[in-house]
Amino acid sequence: MSYWLENMWYCAAYSTEVPLGAVAARIICNHHVVLWRGRDHVVRSLEDRCPHRYAPLSMGDQIGDDRIRCKYHGLEFDGNGICVHNPHDRGLIPRSSALRTFPIHEYCGILWIWMGSKEPDTSLLPDLSFFLPTSPFQQGGRGSLIMKVPFELVVDNLMDLSHAALLHEGILGNDQSIKANTDSGKRHGKVYAKRWMPGIDPPEYLDLIYKGDGSKIDMWHDIEWQPSANLLLDVGATSPGMTKEDGTGVFAQHIVTPMTDTTCMYFFMSARRNPPHRTETEDAKIQARLLELRRIAFAEQDAPIIQAQYETILRMGSYCPHALAGIDKAVVLWRRMFEGMLKNESAGANTPSSAIADRVHN
Amino acid sequence: MSYWLENMWYCAAYSTEVPLGAVAARIICNHHVVLWRGRDHVVRSLEDRCPHRYAPLSMGDQIGDDRIRCKYHGLEFDGNGICVHNPHDRGLIPRSSALRTFPIHEYCGILWIWMGSKEPDTSLLPDLSFFLPTSPFQQGGRGSLIMKVPFELVVDNLMDLSHAALLHEGILGNDQSIKANTDSGKRHGKVYAKRWMPGIDPPEYLDLIYKGDGSKIDMWHDIEWQPSANLLLDVGATSPGMTKEDGTGVFAQHIVTPMTDTTCMYFFMSARRNPPHRTETEDAKIQARLLELRRIAFAEQDAPIIQAQYETILRMGSYCPHALAGIDKAVVLWRRMFEGMLKNESAGANTPSSAIADRVHN
Amino acid sequence: MSYWLENMWYCAAYSTEVPLGAVAARIICNHHVVLWRGRDHVVRSLEDRCPHRYAPLSMGDQIGDDRIRCKYHGLEFDGNGICVHNPHDRGLIPRSSALRTFPIHEYCGILWIWMGSKEPDTSLLPDLSFFLPTSPFQQGGRGSLIMKVPFELVVDNLMDLSHAALLHEGILGNDQSIKANTDSGKRHGKVYAKRWMPGIDPPEYLDLIYKGDGSKIDMWHDIEWQPSANLLLDVGATSPGMTKEDGTGVFAQHIVTPMTDTTCMYFFMSARRNPPHRTETEDAKIQARLLELRRIAFAEQDAPIIQAQYETILRMGSYCPHALAGIDKAVVLWRRMFEGMLKNESAGANTPSSAIADRVHN
Repeated sequence: MSYWLENMWYCAAYSTEVPLGAVAARIICNHHVVLWRGRDHVVRSLEDRCPHRYAPLSMGDQIGDDRIRCKYHGLEFDGNGICVHNPHDRGLIPRSSALRTFPIHEYCGILWIWMGSKEPDTSLLPDLSFFLPTSPFQQGGRGSLIMKVPFELVVDNLMDLSHAALLHEGILGNDQSIKANTDSGKRHGKVYAKRWMPGIDPPEYLDLIYKGDGSKIDMWHDIEWQPSANLLLDVGATSPGMTKEDGTGVFAQHIVTPMTDTTCMYFFMSARRNPPHRTETEDAKIQARLLELRRIAFAEQDAPIIQAQYETILRMGSYCPHALAGIDKAVVLWRRMFEGMLKNESAGANTPSSAIADRVHN
Repeated sequence: MSYWLENMWYCAAYSTEVPLGAVAARIICNHHVVLWRGRDHVVRSLEDRCPHRYAPLSMGDQIGDDRIRCKYHGLEFDGNGICVHNPHDRGLIPRSSALRTFPIHEYCGILWIWMGSKEPDTSLLPDLSFFLPTSPFQQGGRGSLIMKVPFELVVDNLMDLSHAALLHEGILGNDQSIKANTDSGKRHGKVYAKRWMPGIDPPEYLDLIYKGDGSKIDMWHDIEWQPSANLLLDVGATSPGMTKEDGTGVFAQHIVTPMTDTTCMYFFMSARRNPPHRTETEDAKIQARLLELRRIAFAEQDAPIIQAQYETILRMGSYCPHALAGIDKAVVLWRRMFEGMLKNESAGANTPSSAIADRVHN
Repeated sequence: MSYWLENMWYCAAYSTEVPLGAVAARIICNHHVVLWRGRDHVVRSLEDRCPHRYAPLSMGDQIGDDRIRCKYHGLEFDGNGICVHNPHDRGLIPRSSALRTFPIHEYCGILWIWMGSKEPDTSLLPDLSFFLPTSPFQQGGRGSLIMKVPFELVVDNLMDLSHAALLHEGILGNDQSIKANTDSGKRHGKVYAKRWMPGIDPPEYLDLIYKGDGSKIDMWHDIEWQPSANLLLDVGATSPGMTKEDGTGVFAQHIVTPMTDTTCMYFFMSARRNPPHRTETEDAKIQARLLELRRIAFAEQDAPIIQAQYETILRMGSYCPHALAGIDKAVVLWRRMFEGMLKNESAGANTPSSAIADRVHN
């Protein structure tokens, strides 16, 4: 069973997934929603159900400046969820209650959707300045995966930096990076974890973005979670003994959106800080390989093991992980903070599972 | 949840689907039945389960004049559901109760099956004289689809003529045909709906069966439902101001058979009235295109939207459509008449959903 | 609903399926288990779940002499289910309870797993001396199928020799072999059934292993069940009037392992007794055809009908077969003996269905 905050922004789609005149369907926090972009470039979102016969509006078309038209009988709705045109009979508008609307805020190439009943609050959006066109960083490709697990398990996986050395061995870590201490804590309503791994042989991803000659590096993995599932990962390398600023790194933003209790959308994008000078050809080759490594790490390594983990949880009927004191602290902290927020929001109506939070061993 | 009349004929299959010596399996009104045609050309039907070990008899073979033999151990059953041969031991016949039989009536190339406990009543069959070999009309191809929705939704779709202008735009209607009034009503235990659309540009289907030159037509769509799901559609075109008899048209018989609460078989066949004279080559080309348009309309337009509609109903947990006064009247009328029949038959044992019937708006 | 004995050996896999250093996953009696073979050639088995985050250990690797390492975070476990290494932090071992272990006994190229809480008892293993390398018989290929039915239905199918004449007509029986009496009974905690079919035209399998010229044979089918699902089938042919010893035959061992309530693994292997002298080329051809006939009989004939039988049982919600006095006696006997054993083991905690046992007709 998954739990989520209602009064929160969720990433519904990349802006490019809903171009001018396009209609898209999404499932977010158990709501089926339709999104469309009118001729005025504004994206609107409604409950995805024509009240006439329950056909999904997402099977219909964008029409006029700002409307969506049902494919089945042509009823037209505006962005306020009001039926504004009936092509049949004498054009009488059905006396139906308006459809539920979902506020949309477009920011940093992402369509953010507000799922709560309170006023939308843009101060709750994550700071994505590293990924704006105005950023000095080199923007990488954006991607997404549908994961057949509750969104919490994807966040757990990210907040646990230690698995990089094992599950992503060779790509993001190796046996020299295992023993690093993890510094975890809370700060300004966020949870962070940091690992500093000095003087190690570079895993492929780090070698690619830095020297490319296999020489030893000081490596760091830092991650920061903010509600409900916005995670900024900073992966970087510098020459042994030098400062982080002397080195280079990749900022990777991870955003996880609950679809249903048992599924979620996982969005990720990256920006390279201070990339070493290369020819255009060399750099294109490096970027292509970085994307391939990301695909392997997320789709071939993370996704199968998180899916298998979830199947085991379902089979057991409960989840009582034996959290390890060092590497799992950040996992416990984000779960605890998140559950506090859930309790605040629901005042008990939506009781969260105690999950991992109260079970730290060693 | 679907509801159906028990003492009623249902289309189990086209006659051609059970040729001499053939065995077929069908699910009808939640019953698994086996049908087979003996050497005497008669089709029989039983509960599809050998009482010995529960192997489906439909995996077996037709044998002798009138029997079916179980594939697993060779027990043979006659059309009365009696085990008449045991090849094992001393040929002792197991003392089992007879299998349930289902009366079959072959009419107009269709195997009609009677699902009730009352005497079968052939007066309840629809009049299919337009589709008999003796009919003066040009017979078209017959087809069928399995639909993953309760059968009522397929009937709703047919009784609602208005969607032709939107969902089947370009094929059966267009923006000139939208505004026509729908004349709906009850007559002799049937429900009808009629639309007269004068002086419009011809949708492709109508142009094909008539002039083929894109010149304006007077178009009509008439449909008539009779229990439980036999619908005769009359689609035709004539020159503006002329009578229907001066024009041409297609009679299309639609028959929907409940399989389970959530699935049905949808059969359809057609006959062209007064087709314009063409060369054989031209006519073959037209017939092929008519079949293709029917396939697009049913399989690519109706089926996906009805399926999506049903998924929305399942998600909502209830179905309270906002019926529109004009275009939905026939839908309301057939549902109401059908529910009256259900109440009569079951005397309350099989309470139907009030569904669309009592909710007309505007 | 399937029932099984806990204190019993089950075939988990062929030895060849878990070679040196390999890791395998199996589902046995509703338990998900991991098996791995260490560098010392010994196979170990644990509950397939890392207690840290519930990743399946079977996604991990064999490491060291005798350990398995979790793919997700590298925790290592020995064959006693104890975590013996944590690569993170200061190497602290989590204070978790040990994982459940399953005793493995390797015998006759099979990994036998013990699912009960009592001491494993090798005297409960079937005698497989016909299939050992030391056997004088010519060993045939080994195979297996996953069957989507409770294991009891596969045993029923085997204990019922009569279906060979119908379902496997032409391969293992024919209309001359149908009328044979079946001699069934109990002996030393086992159940047997025997059929002697003298002077018949040879079905293909029997012709192939014997004369290969289509001349008449005396054929026998003998089967013996021992708990919980080990069945030895002896199929053979001799010249009319001669002794069994003058003829030839195939011993076929069938072993059925419950996976879940509704699925099982079906293992089978064979050994030819006294094969007639042939050239190597001829014999290879015969062996290939015997394997193909076995595949057809099991995968194309038995599996679909048992699956369909089970679907019918599920649909009916109960299983009250009309057992026939002669051919079904062995089926009734093994079910009855097995249910007695279940009652003894569970002392009522695991009440078996009365199933076929108490319903013999004629």
